[in-house]
Amino acid sequence: MQLRPIKIKRHFTKTAPGSVLFSAGETVILCTASIEEKVPAWLAAEGKGWVTAEYNMLPGSTNPRKQRERMKIDGRTNEIQRLIGRSLRAVVDLQALGPRQIVIDCEVLQADGGTRTASITGGFIALVDALRSIRKQLPDPNHYPIRDSIAAVSVGIVEGRVCLDLDYAHDVNADVDMNVVMTGAGKFVEIQGTGEESTFSESQLTAMLAAAKKGIQTLTLAQKNALGKAWEF
Amino acid sequence: MQLRPIKIKRHFTKTAPGSVLFSAGETVILCTASIEEKVPAWLAAEGKGWVTAEYNMLPGSTNPRKQRERMKIDGRTNEIQRLIGRSLRAVVDLQALGPRQIVIDCEVLQADGGTRTASITGGFIALVDALRSIRKQLPDPNHYPIRDSIAAVSVGIVEGRVCLDLDYAHDVNADVDMNVVMTGAGKFVEIQGTGEESTFSESQLTAMLAAAKKGIQTLTLAQKNALGKAWEF
Amino acid sequence: MQLRPIKIKRHFTKTAPGSVLFSAGETVILCTASIEEKVPAWLAAEGKGWVTAEYNMLPGSTNPRKQRERMKIDGRTNEIQRLIGRSLRAVVDLQALGPRQIVIDCEVLQADGGTRTASITGGFIALVDALRSIRKQLPDPNHYPIRDSIAAVSVGIVEGRVCLDLDYAHDVNADVDMNVVMTGAGKFVEIQGTGEESTFSESQLTAMLAAAKKGIQTLTLAQKNALGKAWEF
Amino acid sequence: MQLRPIKIKRHFTKTAPGSVLFSAGETVILCTASIEEKVPAWLAAEGKGWVTAEYNMLPGSTNPRKQRERMKIDGRTNEIQRLIGRSLRAVVDLQALGPRQIVIDCEVLQADGGTRTASITGGFIALVDALRSIRKQLPDPNHYPIRDSIAAVSVGIVEGRVCLDLDYAHDVNADVDMNVVMTGAGKFVEIQGTGEESTFSESQLTAMLAAAKKGIQTLTLAQKNALGKAWEF
Amino acid sequence: MQLRPIKIKRHFTKTAPGSVLFSAGETVILCTASIEEKVPAWLAAEGKGWVTAEYNMLPGSTNPRKQRERMKIDGRTNEIQRLIGRSLRAVVDLQALGPRQIVIDCEVLQADGGTRTASITGGFIALVDALRSIRKQLPDPNHYPIRDSIAAVSVGIVEGRVCLDLDYAHDVNADVDMNVVMTGAGKFVEIQGTGEESTFSESQLTAMLAAAKKGIQTLTLAQKNALGKAWEF
Amino acid sequence: MQLRPIKIKRHFTKTAPGSVLFSAGETVILCTASIEEKVPAWLAAEGKGWVTAEYNMLPGSTNPRKQRERMKIDGRTNEIQRLIGRSLRAVVDLQALGPRQIVIDCEVLQADGGTRTASITGGFIALVDALRSIRKQLPDPNHYPIRDSIAAVSVGIVEGRVCLDLDYAHDVNADVDMNVVMTGAGKFVEIQGTGEESTFSESQLTAMLAAAKKGIQTLTLAQKNALGKAWEF
Repeated sequence: MQLRPIKIKRHFTKTAPGSVLFSAGETVILCTASIEEKVPAWLAAEGKGWVTAEYNMLPGSTNPRKQRERMKIDGRTNEIQRLIGRSLRAVVDLQALGPRQIVIDCEVLQADGGTRTASITGGFIALVDALRSIRKQLPDPNHYPIRDSIAAVSVGIVEGRVCLDLDYAHDVNADVDMNVVMTGAGKFVEIQGTGEESTFSESQLTAMLAAAKKGIQTLTLAQKNALGKAWEF
Repeated sequence: MQLRPIKIKRHFTKTAPGSVLFSAGETVILCTASIEEKVPAWLAAEGKGWVTAEYNMLPGSTNPRKQRERMKIDGRTNEIQRLIGRSLRAVVDLQALGPRQIVIDCEVLQADGGTRTASITGGFIALVDALRSIRKQLPDPNHYPIRDSIAAVSVGIVEGRVCLDLDYAHDVNADVDMNVVMTGAGKFVEIQGTGEESTFSESQLTAMLAAAKKGIQTLTLAQKNALGKAWEF
Repeated sequence: MQLRPIKIKRHFTKTAPGSVLFSAGETVILCTASIEEKVPAWLAAEGKGWVTAEYNMLPGSTNPRKQRERMKIDGRTNEIQRLIGRSLRAVVDLQALGPRQIVIDCEVLQADGGTRTASITGGFIALVDALRSIRKQLPDPNHYPIRDSIAAVSVGIVEGRVCLDLDYAHDVNADVDMNVVMTGAGKFVEIQGTGEESTFSESQLTAMLAAAKKGIQTLTLAQKNALGKAWEF
Repeated sequence: MQLRPIKIKRHFTKTAPGSVLFSAGETVILCTASIEEKVPAWLAAEGKGWVTAEYNMLPGSTNPRKQRERMKIDGRTNEIQRLIGRSLRAVVDLQALGPRQIVIDCEVLQADGGTRTASITGGFIALVDALRSIRKQLPDPNHYPIRDSIAAVSVGIVEGRVCLDLDYAHDVNADVDMNVVMTGAGKFVEIQGTGEESTFSESQLTAMLAAAKKGIQTLTLAQKNALGKAWEF
Repeated sequence: MQLRPIKIKRHFTKTAPGSVLFSAGETVILCTASIEEKVPAWLAAEGKGWVTAEYNMLPGSTNPRKQRERMKIDGRTNEIQRLIGRSLRAVVDLQALGPRQIVIDCEVLQADGGTRTASITGGFIALVDALRSIRKQLPDPNHYPIRDSIAAVSVGIVEGRVCLDLDYAHDVNADVDMNVVMTGAGKFVEIQGTGEESTFSESQLTAMLAAAKKGIQTLTLAQKNALGKAWEF
Repeated sequence: MQLRPIKIKRHFTKTAPGSVLFSAGETVILCTASIEEKVPAWLAAEGKGWVTAEYNMLPGSTNPRKQRERMKIDGRTNEIQRLIGRSLRAVVDLQALGPRQIVIDCEVLQADGGTRTASITGGFIALVDALRSIRKQLPDPNHYPIRDSIAAVSVGIVEGRVCLDLDYAHDVNADVDMNVVMTGAGKFVEIQGTGEESTFSESQLTAMLAAAKKGIQTLTLAQKNALGKAWEF
């Protein structure tokens, strides 16, 4: 009941102010964080900022090849990118960010389960790097807009047993699939548990939450190590 | 910490084999269940059936008027209708349904919070009525394809207190918003808890789940009363 | 050669200022009227208001189920909603309405022929209720922006005979299908007569118009009874 | 109360089997008729053919330039092309056509009012030429699939007076706008009369229909002269 | 190795300020030039004008009929209209044009190869006519915004031999297909040479360019003759 | 007048059978090659295979961020991916490939000019790796479906001087921009030269082609070194 091996490579590309190549086992995500000096129209009057995410599986990330979403966005993609954005916003002080938007683009280069949770965990690092690049332009440079770290992991029930950080083969066979998003301080941000053509009991729920909590602690440590001095909030 | 008043009117229209007008407080949903004697292409080889849902807020269901989704489906709509379909499938024996699809259309006539959970609770009744209309055409008329009942309710934390079955005014002010889908037998099918720009602790999670469980029990009873003799699975 | 039984239920929902459940035989339409305090861009300079309509058949309104129009609007829908909007505008004094738009949403809950004419007849009642709710905000509260009532009915030639208010079974067999929109004062607003793979003579035209006129008189009376004191223009 | 000058140029292009440049005053339409050896899917089982139309205003046909409809078809375009198709089908024996589809494309090269009626009148000539080109392939070469000729004209009420064949300047000022489609034998196929923000009486209706009838007779003669020997049905 | 016969008819329609029917052999294009007193948003700050083009094959221009592009623009259309716009802009002084946009619409009435090059050659004439119509409104009426003439021709290698101005039958059999856009003064504006499933050598390239150059000289002369006094830049 | 430094990393991801990270200076492209055991419908009857390409700039590849193409493909993207596909097909024996399709996905991770030419040069390597993975399934395993290598480079005229392999800063200032696609054997496959609001002479064309030829030779060598034993056709 362990996490898959994690690799984190910051500054993978140079164009975007945050750019992280994040791997969890065979799942590989490129998370870039870009800064736009404007906010969505509905937010314009409030003076605060926004963090949003886009999620995209590259066609070559699966075999057989996944068709590119170019004419419309499918439901799953939408659901995932809304989750990523919501999760990252939970630890950002949008007022302290000032009237700008940070867009986290999560490009799945290789897919082997857990792409949405890897996007959150890796996306947080890209977000921190992007914020550091504009530290001096913040409304108050001494008020850093990150309140806590955030990471996510999947957990499920496969053949009757609780299983952490499911790869694709486990995911397909899972009776219950749950994604847990938690802060470094141990608070929940999001719980999404689904029995796909199945159900789960209260005791199974308790066991899954305990496993997820341990996984998040390990991921938080990996984020901290990768960020080094940049982990300062 | 009580549910809002529930009203259930079966056979509201005559065209669709299942048609239920479901109200929870000021939220009013028309759930129809239609039967199509074919299944999605990707399922064709398996010989089993499918249950899917579409969710739609009518423009007049809110004030100010909500723009009609005619050129594309927005992310929220997609997420909700995927949840409804998944939840209903959890209690259906798709093999026993035979190679046909049941489409549950959830039309929000009046929106005052909790439209997705009301769609599940009401949609289940429409599903049962539709299934009864084709009982004799089932692969085995004595093997009824419903395994359990299903209902859903929202629960949240508003001003620090757990609050059940949130109307729109409460929903807007909630720090945490959770939707719980459970079977009549008390098993979880789906938990979606979200701290929108907020977080929640383990003890808050426990309290919310307890409240939701009580709400589901009341809703299950209301479904049973409404279905009368049709509640026979 | 009689109309089908009419039922009119005002204030069916509470969110929209006008909300009418209108039935003609087995055809059931929910007409809501919403008010928007802005006008289409091309009208902005003129200071007057606008009335427009949207028409939508719910998937459950037919058996077999009708596919939802979500990615594009089909030609028939467009044609119908343009007719409804044009017809209602014919009796509205747009100048007296002030710079606001009233949107009439006609949702077909159950379809059995004559949905477009029922949308006009029911939509007029929703329009009146919506206007009453903003009476005090009108440019001149004593200048009510309704000039006349409006109603519509279908008439056709089925097996050589003139037939009023066609249900679906008659409509499918009609050689000629005509929709007539008239004011309470007996003026024509719209005549749309079509010989689908067929033609019609001048004497047949005369007979159809006479039947339609009688039908409109009955519908006008039903509108008047339903509106009661609100019928005051 | 006269028609505008008519010019008809058959075989304007060579690619399509029917190709007619039709002018009514300053309105210029290129009507081509193409033959496809297949029918729409919903008709496939019936063994008969189909006639359909597409209508398109070229961007340069108006000044200021009209935006091209490339991403969606607007409501007016849809309504018009459905009218053209319906009108032409009224004089075609679809059974005698055999299992093929004729598509009439009406391209408005220059727009000065009456483009939809000119499309019908000109489209009929293109249809005849296309049919002649496949005479030998018809189910029965001696059973020609045209039952009658068809033509259309607009008529309206401008400043209180009945006015035939409205150009753009008249159309804009018309209180009532009516399109009449009639066969050469004097039968109605379609009547569409609209009081745009206005109404009309029964006597006005009678006067408009009389004027339209005369106009159609002149147009029928022009079609006959243009077709010469090809007018043989 | 000659051009196909050229026909140029100016003022073919009256609505657009430039309107040219251009034929090269059996290829017939209607090029209209419309003037809009605004520029694309991204150009607004610069005070200069813009020239853009749209290209469209009418359904009747080919046999079998080409499906109309109404819901999306296909790749080939996009590529061609970008080429036409770029080519015409190469000879226009956008500063001298002032803050307005000229749209060249190239409607293919009959397609027999070389439609994109014919669109450029004919489009130039329509552009000149449109510019003349606004001569007095130019920033400096004495500074005419045309710097040179422009024309285009196709050239290819068919069965091993260089071939000029390919019609459809040659185009289909060509191993190499090249489009050359040149000014009247003999400067290149665009070279697009493609070996479709084939390659070509340097000597073949030289021979193709020489042939294209001669063709362009003939086309330039034809443009000059057609424009007469209007050829004054 | 030298190429920018080239880096080639084969097998960058494991899911797609061909996967190459190709850098030219600061331009970084991930080229994956996937195999589909079917061909486009229009090719089905011919028994041969197909090679096609998709090109996509990731949002984080530029600063400011580039908006994702999700609802439609813009003209430039279309033009580029058609060029890539055409270029690769020029060296593939589609008959020897058998009835399967190879899709080359070119994802721009970092954009600094020359992304389309880098996509071709890198895409060729991914194509070779993908083909090797199915060598035994080819119609004739001894008839390798690659006829020659292919590479591409940009060349332009910047401030009057010929300039090879333009980065973004040069590209923006270039008067002429040309892309040249050549085989390892020195044959042209594609020449696309454009004077953006500018023109070029024959001697400039000659100088640009000479520079491009040298660049292609260097790129071909780099491809050969990267492929090692896999360079065997």
